[in-house]
Amino acid sequence: MERLRTQVAVIGAGPAGLVLANVLRQAGIDCLVLERHSREYVQARARAGLIEPGTVEFLARHGLAGQLVAEGAEHGACEFRHRGERFSVPYGELSGGRVHHVYPQQFLVRDLIDAYLDAGGTLLFEQGAEALTGLDGDRALVRAADVEIECEFVAGADGFHGISRAAVPERLRQGHGQHEFGQHEYGKQHEFGWLAVLAETPPATREIVYALHEDGFAGHMLRTPSVSRFYLQCPLGDDPANWPDERIWSALHRRLAMTGDELKPGPITEKAVLDMRSHVTEPMRHGRLFLLGDAAHIISPAGGKGMNLAIADAAELARRLLAHYAGREGELAGYSAARLPRIWQAQEFSHWLLHLLHSPDPDGPDAPFLHRLQLSRLAQLRDSPAHSTAFAVNYVGAPID
Amino acid sequence: MERLRTQVAVIGAGPAGLVLANVLRQAGIDCLVLERHSREYVQARARAGLIEPGTVEFLARHGLAGQLVAEGAEHGACEFRHRGERFSVPYGELSGGRVHHVYPQQFLVRDLIDAYLDAGGTLLFEQGAEALTGLDGDRALVRAADVEIECEFVAGADGFHGISRAAVPERLRQGHGQHEFGQHEYGKQHEFGWLAVLAETPPATREIVYALHEDGFAGHMLRTPSVSRFYLQCPLGDDPANWPDERIWSALHRRLAMTGDELKPGPITEKAVLDMRSHVTEPMRHGRLFLLGDAAHIISPAGGKGMNLAIADAAELARRLLAHYAGREGELAGYSAARLPRIWQAQEFSHWLLHLLHSPDPDGPDAPFLHRLQLSRLAQLRDSPAHSTAFAVNYVGAPID
Repeated sequence: MERLRTQVAVIGAGPAGLVLANVLRQAGIDCLVLERHSREYVQARARAGLIEPGTVEFLARHGLAGQLVAEGAEHGACEFRHRGERFSVPYGELSGGRVHHVYPQQFLVRDLIDAYLDAGGTLLFEQGAEALTGLDGDRALVRAADVEIECEFVAGADGFHGISRAAVPERLRQGHGQHEFGQHEYGKQHEFGWLAVLAETPPATREIVYALHEDGFAGHMLRTPSVSRFYLQCPLGDDPANWPDERIWSALHRRLAMTGDELKPGPITEKAVLDMRSHVTEPMRHGRLFLLGDAAHIISPAGGKGMNLAIADAAELARRLLAHYAGREGELAGYSAARLPRIWQAQEFSHWLLHLLHSPDPDGPDAPFLHRLQLSRLAQLRDSPAHSTAFAVNYVGAPID
Repeated sequence: MERLRTQVAVIGAGPAGLVLANVLRQAGIDCLVLERHSREYVQARARAGLIEPGTVEFLARHGLAGQLVAEGAEHGACEFRHRGERFSVPYGELSGGRVHHVYPQQFLVRDLIDAYLDAGGTLLFEQGAEALTGLDGDRALVRAADVEIECEFVAGADGFHGISRAAVPERLRQGHGQHEFGQHEYGKQHEFGWLAVLAETPPATREIVYALHEDGFAGHMLRTPSVSRFYLQCPLGDDPANWPDERIWSALHRRLAMTGDELKPGPITEKAVLDMRSHVTEPMRHGRLFLLGDAAHIISPAGGKGMNLAIADAAELARRLLAHYAGREGELAGYSAARLPRIWQAQEFSHWLLHLLHSPDPDGPDAPFLHRLQLSRLAQLRDSPAHSTAFAVNYVGAPID
């Protein structure tokens, strides 16, 4: 087995790991990225597509936003539909001109891999980390299939089911809110699923559409001029096999209130029932291991926060690693405390948006009363400038320092 | 039994009934007010004390705000406390200078009775309505202990337990969300009680205080320079006898984080455990009967909305009765539809504020996660101008047309 040494071992070539690796490399800090999957796989893996202005600005400052800005479409308004009525929230205007870019996550991953490799970075594909040791000692050791990496710090950006989160002692990874040695896990399993659909069809809308419907929520997201992302609320743990293509198109037409003229069925290239879960690990550090992105927190897709939080984690950790290697050693201690308020704010917004889009369980207590509150929130988003501005500020997200 | 005739019989001499009667009388519409209790009783009954600018402006336009403006204190900021930290939300500034007046409800009731009687109005005390008939016919009949009133319309402003709400057919008054003949009742019983305390002690604060505490919520409300209102979260259905005075002062000191130097114990003149319930009846009309205030909707005390909604109901109904008697007979049909969006908006705000102030049931699912969302909402109220502005706009309420 080959043994390599580096300053920072990055586990996972998703947006968080790749942004961190690019920024560290630009600053001359030695690092190395391990990725379980192949390059082809990660460059094709469709995920999010709504990139916040703070994320774009940060990437641009590091020369990583070229393709994104050239090819991504600006997006500054979203539409809500309910019972034949629709209204648009011009969140770009409401937030002082801050808009998203619509750009598929796998394209950004491709761009970040290109930039990192072009700069001479080391990225080992098909080398999943299998063990992390020494996190409390002088040096950490990351063991993968064919290599061992000896390093000063480990950046765990390998997702909720990755080894990094698992390296946090077992006692912290079970159940809700356990509290030992100052560490917690907070979780919430939402009471419904989302069927996520990717289809080769042009968008039937210029704005993201969120539709409340008695059959359940439906969302029409944007990706590229020829590919669209849709969400359909479904029962928790539903099987995608219950959703043949015809049923999907029929449900989309009905819930989105779109005719076949507008929404043209096309080949469905992906359908999956999302595990609608929210999760936060505190703190996001365990000795020499720092957690980033989904390894540290899962957020529901509502609001498009997941990838943006992951990149903001990477930005914060990069800034603090640079400070550390510039001699300000105390900086690393502040990583978790700096990120968690922003992460909880995003969780709060995503939770609020989920409850705006999903009617309460009709069998639950007080369901009719709570449903009327839901509709009143929707009306305030439509009618109250103060409320739509608060929505806008949360939706576009904060700048990244 | 004496038989009287009038155009509008008003049941209940609370803020809603008295405002309606005053405005109708000013416009020369014949009306008559029945009140179950004595004048002394209603003029001494302590209830709310936070009067919204829209309410004050409406009362002033009708010459009913003289004492209120002369004696009430302007109030434009409230304070939130949690774990030794405190911050003030200057909602007056945030809403463009709109501020509350602090003025005890029973003083306003006294002023409204004086104005109505001075103008020659008829107000029968100790005449509780006992039967309502003819609501679907040509004339309605209100029977009280010693009088019968024949009238064209009945304004039911006699509270949640009054005869007006009871006159809406039985099938509508049970359970949640029943739906027959287009009528609904929506209700929510909150999972905790509030011990409401009135004490002869000067306020220990210039601003209303909302304190989140691990023992439960505590509130310090303002009434007069010598009388203060306090709230203490307690178990649902708790007995006030469980709260001897010393326990109340001790809990207030602890939860409000106030020393004895600031909060001086004084005689406690009232302690009651509030039935924390929210309720809305739709529509707010049943034939010749119109429901106002608590007869139509109950709202939690959080946010001080109850009396203001009641007066806004009265203003809306008065405007439409005037239009009706001026020959625009269709106007009455719009009463309920005009009021309900505002009422649901207030319910939504009050519910939001309750959940900001009360931690989730620690035994409930996902309690630690939901508690962190609660703290994040509190942090956004402190840190985000957009969020504190949205709070401010809802807290001060809308103008009354």
